[in-house]
Amino acid sequence: MSDYTPPLHDLRFLIHNVIGLQTVSDIPAFAETSPDLVDAILEEAGKLASGVLAPLNRIGDQEGSVLQTDGHVRTPTGWKDAYDKFCEGGWQGISAPQTEGGMGLPLLLGAAVGELWHSANMAFALCPMLTAGAIELLTAHGSDEQRAIYLSRMISGEWTGTMNLTEPQAGSDLSKVRSTAEPEDDGSYRITGQKIFITYGDHEMTSNIVHLVLARTPDAPNGVKGISLFIVPKFVVNADGTPGERNDVKCVSLEHKLGIHGSPTAVLSFGDNGGAKGYLVGHKGHGLACMFTMMNNARLAVGQQGVAISERAYQQAVSYARDRKQGKSPTTGQDESIIHLGDVQRMLIRMRSTAEAARALSLYAAAQLDIAHHHEDENERTKAQTRANLLIPMVKGWSTDLGVENASLGIQVHGGMGFIEETGAAQHLRDARIAPIYEGTNGIQALDLIGRKLLRDNGAAVRSLITEMRMSVSKPHLDDNLSKAARMFAHAIDQLEQTTKDILSRCKNSSGLAQAIASPYLRQTSICVAGWLMFRSLEKLTDSDIEKGFAKAKGLSCNFFLAQIVPEADFMAQQIANTRHELLHETAPLF
Amino acid sequence: MSDYTPPLHDLRFLIHNVIGLQTVSDIPAFAETSPDLVDAILEEAGKLASGVLAPLNRIGDQEGSVLQTDGHVRTPTGWKDAYDKFCEGGWQGISAPQTEGGMGLPLLLGAAVGELWHSANMAFALCPMLTAGAIELLTAHGSDEQRAIYLSRMISGEWTGTMNLTEPQAGSDLSKVRSTAEPEDDGSYRITGQKIFITYGDHEMTSNIVHLVLARTPDAPNGVKGISLFIVPKFVVNADGTPGERNDVKCVSLEHKLGIHGSPTAVLSFGDNGGAKGYLVGHKGHGLACMFTMMNNARLAVGQQGVAISERAYQQAVSYARDRKQGKSPTTGQDESIIHLGDVQRMLIRMRSTAEAARALSLYAAAQLDIAHHHEDENERTKAQTRANLLIPMVKGWSTDLGVENASLGIQVHGGMGFIEETGAAQHLRDARIAPIYEGTNGIQALDLIGRKLLRDNGAAVRSLITEMRMSVSKPHLDDNLSKAARMFAHAIDQLEQTTKDILSRCKNSSGLAQAIASPYLRQTSICVAGWLMFRSLEKLTDSDIEKGFAKAKGLSCNFFLAQIVPEADFMAQQIANTRHELLHETAPLF
Repeated sequence: MSDYTPPLHDLRFLIHNVIGLQTVSDIPAFAETSPDLVDAILEEAGKLASGVLAPLNRIGDQEGSVLQTDGHVRTPTGWKDAYDKFCEGGWQGISAPQTEGGMGLPLLLGAAVGELWHSANMAFALCPMLTAGAIELLTAHGSDEQRAIYLSRMISGEWTGTMNLTEPQAGSDLSKVRSTAEPEDDGSYRITGQKIFITYGDHEMTSNIVHLVLARTPDAPNGVKGISLFIVPKFVVNADGTPGERNDVKCVSLEHKLGIHGSPTAVLSFGDNGGAKGYLVGHKGHGLACMFTMMNNARLAVGQQGVAISERAYQQAVSYARDRKQGKSPTTGQDESIIHLGDVQRMLIRMRSTAEAARALSLYAAAQLDIAHHHEDENERTKAQTRANLLIPMVKGWSTDLGVENASLGIQVHGGMGFIEETGAAQHLRDARIAPIYEGTNGIQALDLIGRKLLRDNGAAVRSLITEMRMSVSKPHLDDNLSKAARMFAHAIDQLEQTTKDILSRCKNSSGLAQAIASPYLRQTSICVAGWLMFRSLEKLTDSDIEKGFAKAKGLSCNFFLAQIVPEADFMAQQIANTRHELLHETAPLF
Repeated sequence: MSDYTPPLHDLRFLIHNVIGLQTVSDIPAFAETSPDLVDAILEEAGKLASGVLAPLNRIGDQEGSVLQTDGHVRTPTGWKDAYDKFCEGGWQGISAPQTEGGMGLPLLLGAAVGELWHSANMAFALCPMLTAGAIELLTAHGSDEQRAIYLSRMISGEWTGTMNLTEPQAGSDLSKVRSTAEPEDDGSYRITGQKIFITYGDHEMTSNIVHLVLARTPDAPNGVKGISLFIVPKFVVNADGTPGERNDVKCVSLEHKLGIHGSPTAVLSFGDNGGAKGYLVGHKGHGLACMFTMMNNARLAVGQQGVAISERAYQQAVSYARDRKQGKSPTTGQDESIIHLGDVQRMLIRMRSTAEAARALSLYAAAQLDIAHHHEDENERTKAQTRANLLIPMVKGWSTDLGVENASLGIQVHGGMGFIEETGAAQHLRDARIAPIYEGTNGIQALDLIGRKLLRDNGAAVRSLITEMRMSVSKPHLDDNLSKAARMFAHAIDQLEQTTKDILSRCKNSSGLAQAIASPYLRQTSICVAGWLMFRSLEKLTDSDIEKGFAKAKGLSCNFFLAQIVPEADFMAQQIANTRHELLHETAPLF
């Protein structure tokens, strides 16, 4: 496995020049987020990522987390030390409110830093990622007492958090949750049931773990409205805030997974001995609504994993392609490394340009979430929230698909060595493969985009985005390269507009058709929005503060994306246009 | 892991109705290959594949082949018994000449049967696949004595064969081979060197292993012309044909690979104790030329692996999608299985239609090879050889890329369960990932297509194919559905013609540009040719011997491929048109 070099240059460029830090730092809540602070934080995070987390990535894959015979889960060698260092830096609380002990920095920065953790060591970074979700949830819905007991300790990293949604029969369809919560006289609940796929469901890195659990109260209606949310700590907390007696929840097994071996994916059994002590969060029956609070941020974070793996796989492939000599230079006759071959270059630049485009897309979404949550003007908040809602399924869906595609390309660049585990290229594919699945499968993302984000407002949000994209490319006074890029890209915008119109008219009375074209529509829109950000990046490369070497390399990525990746939007548009619902609908009995 | 059902219906349809068995059985050498014989052989092979090999697939993955402390390689539980059954059926010699003890059946049938082995158990099937290459090589280049000693025993399966090409510094570039062969007084050679990535380089299933080894004689020139081919048996063969003393070749390690764990990938060390006894095959310096003899068949076989994994992953995904209940039917309100969701249907039909299209492509190539090798008319042989040469890189490159894409989709259909190893879906992705790499990486396939098969004859072979495809779709009297399909497909042909013309003119003086567009060109041509075969399949569905249920399901695959997959050729054409060589050429220093 090669070293990891945090892509600080590109992150800074995107934050400062393309997305515009000011759009966020103008908000009073983020007034302290100066450009210098951003750079300093990226620098520090980069050191921890490359120096501490990245070297543990392969060890984590080989050792995995293990459920020992004593019932405790042991994380891989070095994991706990790394976690302590992570907490010392205060990183868990980077985007948590200052009032609760966090740094209160914008998500724009939090997302950038998140990419570094995932690139360095995705299996490790899942632990803080899940805790961040729990933090967000309790910040919004926890009582004063719950926040005092649990939140501050999660923000400091002293305790971690988990999300307990899935049960064997209830995955994408949470209405099927069967775990129960019986009320006790003291206001607490006794929780019983089995939860699966619980990331960091048990480990030894902290003195307590805060499980957030979906379960049904006895009187609850069927379906999602009967589901409530509960805090179930691994150790019941004493009055003084210290972990007390062991709660009735235990890890009964860890999954044997394709990848992210370092991350313990637990089957948790609640209530084998009478019921685990749990505390209701928010209102009864609002469990799923509470979960939705953190959905956008969680999906953004998973999207960042796609970016992160693409970047890491790219760096490793470049490093191999530079060293590996096969064939001779046609000009000098000397042995030449494979990085000089056109086909290898195509694979590498495809990996790089898509990683960078997905990065731009995710940071753009993060900034919109910052505005949506913290802007003083309600109108601005609403506008940004609408935009973010539209972007999030693209970030989650497209970026994680790219993560898989790029990790696979990374293996290909390595030739035979890519298939050998010690090379490390294969781990990226194995790790990347989970991201299109969890936190809502990419199919669910696509349905969210076409259903809730397109059809529900009859296309208003998409139209507003299209208008904004069109303004960018129709600016006068573009130089030659830019006007060429603008022309190429204008076609993709026109086409997106056409596809969107067609969908709105064709899907009015057919949810079946919407389902059948949701995935290509997600890919088409994602490529268009990412293409727009690559175009905007191209425009900014002549800014006076841009270093020439960076401008050249970045220009290459942008031009490649616009010329070679954006045409895929065409292909998706054709797929959508050619989809007859009946055709697919007839298939079920034919498989 | 789900059961495996051999796709006999589709194989029979393609062989009898689409490719046309008669194009092959009209050749005197194959006069005995009657339709009934074909069906009987497919039936028998299907039984062995589904009943014996498929149940061992998961065991092979879990146990792997192991290099024991005594220096012997142990294959997984059940492997040897299965191998014995495989030999009892005479399957190793299915396409080997009757004069040498084989069945002498056409490759068209051999390829169809090969798909079944790979679908059932790819790691197992690699052993006969490599032996088949060795058989072909010795059939063409072995002396009478070599054929008498080695060939008959390989055809019966009594001994297996291996291919020893790669060394650590010599992969795609075999001119870098360093292994040496010193002549001995008795006419044999002493072989010294290290070979890596040797599939079934050692195992305990047979009493001897016939290694075919590339090495340099002392007086040999540098580069590929100095490389000769040698037989190096694991046990030196006694005068009576029995295995004698252990030769000086040993397995020093097995690779720890992403997939195909059951297949031992050996590092072989030749000559640690003075030199392994080897025997020259063919002429000195013609080692690589000898290897080329079997290249087309070997690449066809690897392409079949892509088809095979696509089919197996598809079957498993369908089985899961039928059983897995999430969500409710919008009409009945009852729990419904996910196979009724449009997005899941899209994934499944994409897997199926591409598997079937790639299958058609590979069988078409196999039939062309049969004609090229055995037709009585030299003109027909040349024509078929030219066509086969054009098709083989598509079969190998495109089908194996599809294998990876489809195995990945198969995981996605499973949701979270797909990421859990015991489900078996992940194994398909891990196994599939090698096929785009070995037997010439897919980048090499693309360069072969654009260099040797397109530019070298100035486009003649491609033009002839285009003409033939155009004739198919411009036939009069097509019914409604067919004329619609024909119109859609005619566009793809026109575009392929245009792209090809452009490439011929642009690449004349730029090998750099050819390299940079080779991969999208391979994908574009493959999709077009496969689309043509799907169109021809559609035409044949009204044949009187076609069962209605099959016709409906197959029609769906064909229509989906033409409407949803063929437009990707458009995307590839745009990529090619937008590629400026300079752009890529500049990249090397910028990565």
